[in-house]
Amino acid sequence: MSVEQQFLDYVKSINHYIQTLQLLYWDARTKLPKKGQEERSNVIGTVSQQIHHLTTSDELKHLLEGVQKDETVSDVTKRSAILVQKKYDEFTKIPAEEYKEYIMLSSRSELAWEQAKESNDFESFKPYLEKIVAYKKKTIEYLGYEGHPYNCLLDDFEPGMTVEKLDVIFEQLKEVLIPLIQDVVQADRQPDANVLFHHFPKAEQEKLSHAFLETIGYDFEAGRLDETVHPFATGINRNDVRVTTKYNETDFRVALLGTIHEGGHALYEQNIGEHLIGTPASAASSFGIHESQSLFMEKFVGQNEGFWKTNYPVLKKYAGGSFDDVSFDDFYFALNEAKPSFIRIEADELTYCLHVILRYELEKALFSNEIQVEELPTKWNEKMEEYFGIVPNTDSEGVLQDVHWPSGMFGYFPSYALGYIYAAQLKQQLVHDIPDFEERIQNGDIKAITAWMTMNVHEHGAMKEPREIIYDATGEDVNAEPLLSYLKDKYTKLYHL
Amino acid sequence: MSVEQQFLDYVKSINHYIQTLQLLYWDARTKLPKKGQEERSNVIGTVSQQIHHLTTSDELKHLLEGVQKDETVSDVTKRSAILVQKKYDEFTKIPAEEYKEYIMLSSRSELAWEQAKESNDFESFKPYLEKIVAYKKKTIEYLGYEGHPYNCLLDDFEPGMTVEKLDVIFEQLKEVLIPLIQDVVQADRQPDANVLFHHFPKAEQEKLSHAFLETIGYDFEAGRLDETVHPFATGINRNDVRVTTKYNETDFRVALLGTIHEGGHALYEQNIGEHLIGTPASAASSFGIHESQSLFMEKFVGQNEGFWKTNYPVLKKYAGGSFDDVSFDDFYFALNEAKPSFIRIEADELTYCLHVILRYELEKALFSNEIQVEELPTKWNEKMEEYFGIVPNTDSEGVLQDVHWPSGMFGYFPSYALGYIYAAQLKQQLVHDIPDFEERIQNGDIKAITAWMTMNVHEHGAMKEPREIIYDATGEDVNAEPLLSYLKDKYTKLYHL
Repeated sequence: MSVEQQFLDYVKSINHYIQTLQLLYWDARTKLPKKGQEERSNVIGTVSQQIHHLTTSDELKHLLEGVQKDETVSDVTKRSAILVQKKYDEFTKIPAEEYKEYIMLSSRSELAWEQAKESNDFESFKPYLEKIVAYKKKTIEYLGYEGHPYNCLLDDFEPGMTVEKLDVIFEQLKEVLIPLIQDVVQADRQPDANVLFHHFPKAEQEKLSHAFLETIGYDFEAGRLDETVHPFATGINRNDVRVTTKYNETDFRVALLGTIHEGGHALYEQNIGEHLIGTPASAASSFGIHESQSLFMEKFVGQNEGFWKTNYPVLKKYAGGSFDDVSFDDFYFALNEAKPSFIRIEADELTYCLHVILRYELEKALFSNEIQVEELPTKWNEKMEEYFGIVPNTDSEGVLQDVHWPSGMFGYFPSYALGYIYAAQLKQQLVHDIPDFEERIQNGDIKAITAWMTMNVHEHGAMKEPREIIYDATGEDVNAEPLLSYLKDKYTKLYHL
Repeated sequence: MSVEQQFLDYVKSINHYIQTLQLLYWDARTKLPKKGQEERSNVIGTVSQQIHHLTTSDELKHLLEGVQKDETVSDVTKRSAILVQKKYDEFTKIPAEEYKEYIMLSSRSELAWEQAKESNDFESFKPYLEKIVAYKKKTIEYLGYEGHPYNCLLDDFEPGMTVEKLDVIFEQLKEVLIPLIQDVVQADRQPDANVLFHHFPKAEQEKLSHAFLETIGYDFEAGRLDETVHPFATGINRNDVRVTTKYNETDFRVALLGTIHEGGHALYEQNIGEHLIGTPASAASSFGIHESQSLFMEKFVGQNEGFWKTNYPVLKKYAGGSFDDVSFDDFYFALNEAKPSFIRIEADELTYCLHVILRYELEKALFSNEIQVEELPTKWNEKMEEYFGIVPNTDSEGVLQDVHWPSGMFGYFPSYALGYIYAAQLKQQLVHDIPDFEERIQNGDIKAITAWMTMNVHEHGAMKEPREIIYDATGEDVNAEPLLSYLKDKYTKLYHL
């Protein structure tokens, strides 16, 4: 058997364990009985260790050397070797003992955070966060970096992205968004969000969620929709991509917009090239590109005016009459309400990026030693005041709100804002290529749109770096301008600014 | 770390992969989207190979030697070593290449069987079955045996059981059952099964199945109930034991009696001693003992007259009035109808064992070279005539009906009849220890009954061999008498013989 084939077989078996892990997690979050949770953690531990073991073995090292010096191997093999080498380096540069201790630390840290958030007690969580940050600082030294040390963390989520690039982009966003939000706050015309909070039976929301997923092109023969507490989508492989949602009978947005968002993630995974299956290239290019797909669907389809012109009557029917006294204009304005708020995951599209930038700036300052963990609550509140003009009453709705820091996911947040930026860039190009975009959305004829996205994004999986995806699709590097003009246009019109 | 601890850690990791495999199978049979099936087989293959690899390693061999010569190890460790040694021997005595070929053969064989069954074409399936039987004969030589070669196959499902013992027991069953069935056939009083086939909405059957599971003591915090095509129960671990069922809106027995049957399996798994978790002793003692638990619940609880005196009115309510014109006596008689039939899995409790004995006799004759694969259809039909007085019109409802032979599970069938025999032995002792058994069943007060079964069967897991379980619980070896007197009594009364 050729070295290339041996390598591909080897990475396929790693991929099989990753698929297994995805199923173990999906099941834990949707189906697992309560008493089974503790033992499930042990099983997940064993499978994770096996992935770590296979990714750091001498056998893999030799196979990597073999395929890297063989110039006849396929492009998929070449790219797979690059992706696996990165994981190999990451896992082998960090001493196994320290990594294992960190895994246990982060699981204790998450528990401590849950309690701290519940009792609004940052002090009790502080020692955990200090240890997590200290570990992360050590790994930055192990792994190495160019420029700012935070670049090392960014690279895990958004390969190729740097502080140097982000600072420029985020300053541009702040310059436009901070005053625009103040204009919206002070506008005379304001929506009445209460028109949205009418009773909508769960069973009917479920049916409509199903129908919306079909509208955007989600394939139910290669997926399913289940209920959970914190919705997510998981791509076990391109033929088994599962969406989850939750239902709130007095706020349909949670399920309906949530399902469209997760459906966007799922479309990406379902359309990754079939020839990549079983290789490390059969994955998203980055977290930011993944988020661009969910946000494209949620914002540019699921909050599109034409989409609701067609679907508001449908929603009214499913809701069984409880929206009959709400006009389309009131409904659509309320659905697009923008205002400063404390909680990132509940934020609207106008304010969302500032929540992300706030976190980015604090993370960057932590890892360049400009601030210490203990200063986070104060710094958080100062930035809330500066960007939104509001200050949270408690740390629970401030610095303690997200799970990312307790879990050690520093470097993740920027991907959310990059997802918005990429989505707007892709949409601008898409409208150029498919000029009747708005008409198609209104008619529920999304096929050509999804096909464009598949050709330009989905099918490449991780064969391209994020910046290649965006450049090849739009002819430009990452660029905040399309997002900013979309937001300016939309909110100027909506609020009669 | 002590050798004992190393050994326990090692077997725990094997156990984690087994749990993973159980989840992969459960998901494949209940939730997996259609297009995901092919890739799932590959993932299952990788995890199965890992279990095989861990069970045949030199590391395990050394650990086994270590704990076997250390007399200070715990009873659980001692027993675990015996159970693992058995698997180690089995896997290492059969050349890995031959085993791998066989795995592929049996999967092709199952596909060929499906087609053959559909088109009633034994000839097309014969070559596969011949290869399967040839492989099994070879493994018998590799593994060795005492007495009859079939004993080697039996030992896989019912450790310690032999042809010599089974022949005696099964002759005893035939002697009583064949004439008893003929008496029932010729009785004047006959039930009208049509009274059962009234419409019963699926959603209501689901609720009642749920309620019945709770009645028999199934813990929904350590389990769940889902829909599938071929119902089963699976114990991922004692805290995660899942029941599946299917619903037929014109035959409620499929779901309700099926759920109680699978619930009996599940109760066993949920009550295996907590201290055994993660060891190979955290499993059933044998297939026969497992079946004794499902049959005990299905037959001695779920078809008990007192149970239905209480639950028939409940069923009537759930069915929404469609049983209102059916009297209790007609209902109960129909529910316990006995008559010769072709299909084992649809057979009633009176005729069931003869279906099993027929298969046992054919398997035994195959492996002692008294008959050849090509003679199976003829021999099958001869025995049907002899035992039931009926002959199937097609091989599809004869020799081709079961998946066991296509999958190579020779030696499995006797466990089904042993399950009946054990169940009746256990019931006889239980009634002796809890004399108000019938009253408790009627009152839905099953706690003490389940507790007795847990103390005598469930909690021991695989710490005891099946014959020890039965002997320790009843003071007797396997004995068909309690089953025979139960059947004689019940059917004499029901049919006024």
